[in-house]
Amino acid sequence: MPHVVIIGAGFAGLNAAKVLSRAGNVSITLIDRNNHHVFQPLLYQVAMAELSPADIAEPIRAMFRRRPNVRVLQGEVLHIDRARQTVQASFGSLSYDYLILATGAQHHYFGHEEWEPLAPGLKTLGQATEIRRRVLAAFEAAECSGDPEEQTRLLRFVIVGGGPTGVELAGAIGEIGRFTLKHNFRSIDPAQARIILVEAGPRILPTFPDALAARAVRDLDKLGVTVRCGGAVTAITGQGVRVGEDWLAAGTVIWAAGVRPSSLGGQLGVPLDRQGRVIVTPDLSIPGDPRVFVAGDLAHCLHNGQPLPGVAGVALQQGRFLGRLLRRELTGRPRKPFRFLDKGQMATIGHNKALAAIGRLRFAGYPAWVIWAFLHIYYLASFHNRVFVFLQWAWLYFTRRRGARLILGGDWRFYQKAE
Amino acid sequence: MPHVVIIGAGFAGLNAAKVLSRAGNVSITLIDRNNHHVFQPLLYQVAMAELSPADIAEPIRAMFRRRPNVRVLQGEVLHIDRARQTVQASFGSLSYDYLILATGAQHHYFGHEEWEPLAPGLKTLGQATEIRRRVLAAFEAAECSGDPEEQTRLLRFVIVGGGPTGVELAGAIGEIGRFTLKHNFRSIDPAQARIILVEAGPRILPTFPDALAARAVRDLDKLGVTVRCGGAVTAITGQGVRVGEDWLAAGTVIWAAGVRPSSLGGQLGVPLDRQGRVIVTPDLSIPGDPRVFVAGDLAHCLHNGQPLPGVAGVALQQGRFLGRLLRRELTGRPRKPFRFLDKGQMATIGHNKALAAIGRLRFAGYPAWVIWAFLHIYYLASFHNRVFVFLQWAWLYFTRRRGARLILGGDWRFYQKAE
Repeated sequence: MPHVVIIGAGFAGLNAAKVLSRAGNVSITLIDRNNHHVFQPLLYQVAMAELSPADIAEPIRAMFRRRPNVRVLQGEVLHIDRARQTVQASFGSLSYDYLILATGAQHHYFGHEEWEPLAPGLKTLGQATEIRRRVLAAFEAAECSGDPEEQTRLLRFVIVGGGPTGVELAGAIGEIGRFTLKHNFRSIDPAQARIILVEAGPRILPTFPDALAARAVRDLDKLGVTVRCGGAVTAITGQGVRVGEDWLAAGTVIWAAGVRPSSLGGQLGVPLDRQGRVIVTPDLSIPGDPRVFVAGDLAHCLHNGQPLPGVAGVALQQGRFLGRLLRRELTGRPRKPFRFLDKGQMATIGHNKALAAIGRLRFAGYPAWVIWAFLHIYYLASFHNRVFVFLQWAWLYFTRRRGARLILGGDWRFYQKAE
Repeated sequence: MPHVVIIGAGFAGLNAAKVLSRAGNVSITLIDRNNHHVFQPLLYQVAMAELSPADIAEPIRAMFRRRPNVRVLQGEVLHIDRARQTVQASFGSLSYDYLILATGAQHHYFGHEEWEPLAPGLKTLGQATEIRRRVLAAFEAAECSGDPEEQTRLLRFVIVGGGPTGVELAGAIGEIGRFTLKHNFRSIDPAQARIILVEAGPRILPTFPDALAARAVRDLDKLGVTVRCGGAVTAITGQGVRVGEDWLAAGTVIWAAGVRPSSLGGQLGVPLDRQGRVIVTPDLSIPGDPRVFVAGDLAHCLHNGQPLPGVAGVALQQGRFLGRLLRRELTGRPRKPFRFLDKGQMATIGHNKALAAIGRLRFAGYPAWVIWAFLHIYYLASFHNRVFVFLQWAWLYFTRRRGARLILGGDWRFYQKAE
């Protein structure tokens, strides 16, 4: 029976395993460094105390408990040997007939890796709870401080990167200060929190239509968010950031700017693009080796002459495509090329405020927010998550209070810096 | 206006502040090192992946948002100066007219503090998620291991201490192996997990009636828990524990044995009992200083000639008592002594299985479990927590699956040892 090894249980790897496991004549090993799949599009809501980590995560092996042909192993892949068709992992070595590499991307600080502890990014649940801790702790520290200048600094939040994640984080911090924390403090007014969204390019949300991006700027402004475009961050310290020539004192800095593909791509020995993504053939296999595929954020895959962006929708479609491709191949049918179906893009700004560009349609405000909420509930990994996310949102909608306002001891990766 | 400083927002401090804040002619400062109050009786359910941390925690300042006479400060109290009536904290110094010290207790390893990273206790949310991580990671590591002897060791869990917490943890691990993880593994059978509950005394649940303790032993046995009484732990390593002369190889060790009162009690300069608790007068003030009170786990308070145990019910009643006492005192009325109303004690073992001793009544099995569940929902700190805990329990009840099965990067305090 052919053995398919899938590395990474994000949207690409998970969906490849789900579709492929319906075939009887195949054995699948799915490897991930975590025991759970994370629904990344809602990760910012964990960072913003709206949801708990468990609301957007599902144990990977629980999803495959009725699929005996799938084996799930928690571990780190160290080395891929294409000549011997083996994968070396922290728990030992496995040989494969087919390999799907879907290890995604992580944050990239453009050569300033020393910025990471000062400005964490948002790719994992650990980072999300660390960002939550820092944002909430900034308000606590401001309440305890007797120095008005320090209070102003602590209530200033800088978000680096004006893509959807940056916009979502900025809007959410604005709402926390204005609504969630109302009446909670005695020495500070949390509504005085100022959020600065720094984007090096000429405007935020560069992949969205102009009109929607302009609407986002107006909606963000009402929440105390200042959008600052056209200047790159040149320094980050524990006291703030430098943007171009200007110094912005700030208590909290969050990184939502660059990503770098997983380094495992480099082990395949095939050409990478400038960012480090593996350039794949039309069926997502790598040049010269039809038994090895790359999918998700790690793949450089052309669509209308442009590489597809590293978003959940692309990874999900690529994963399902590979599951179907291998099922066909196992019954002797030929391969087809991957075709991406563009379902549009969305971003939320806050309560009743979102943006959506679906085909030629444009939505903003309440209609976009309803579509956004419906689609995110629909795509969640399990019934349990759908029910609990829906209820948490209903709670937040009516009370404007957040269910997960916890400051928990710093994530180990950042602990040395914290406090 | 008199200024009351309350240190610690556990059951005692929180309830003192709640009751006292209804008086208009007083200003209250409530200090805690966390931003949230934890509902400790359900902490073991966070450790056992049933509930998320946010389900049993509530931001302290959110509870007092409509009480402008209460100021909440997050920080650590370093020093108490009774002569000058000041408290020195990490954020600065405060003077008080009345002081309530309610900083509780932490784990105590009887002179073997080096055991802490090897056998974490269960007093904080950070420790709860660390225990959850270790228990779930043990099953993951067993699945990846090719060595049957190592698999057996990894599937053996030792719990030190046969009080209610130890019993609850042991029963829950048994249920995780038998029900939650069913069909989830390919190389191991999680139902083969063995749990050893080690109690140095002659029997488990020493404060419960004999018959209920015997029933607990039978119920635990059905879940794969072996109760081992009459031998103390003499060594703990990364490979297991030594009990008397016997070596028990084990992958996970959890500490539910001794507690030590907070060291702040020693700064008051009044007599402590052998354990380190402050011996209080009948109105919970300290001898010779009617302006300083001690409540909760830190207080040595006699009831029927015996010191009251360090449980939530005692702390809650003492907190409310102090709130009422100070409200009376502020209107010139005399003090009364604290009277404890014994409402009985309870422990859960698992699905439909619990024990309750209420006055002369004894309950076991399903009736006790229903009473237990109802009371714990009732006493939760907020409507939000009540709704979400109830729904998570309903989910667990019907599916036997746990909503928070996450392995998240080790708590910094334990990280050096982990993996």
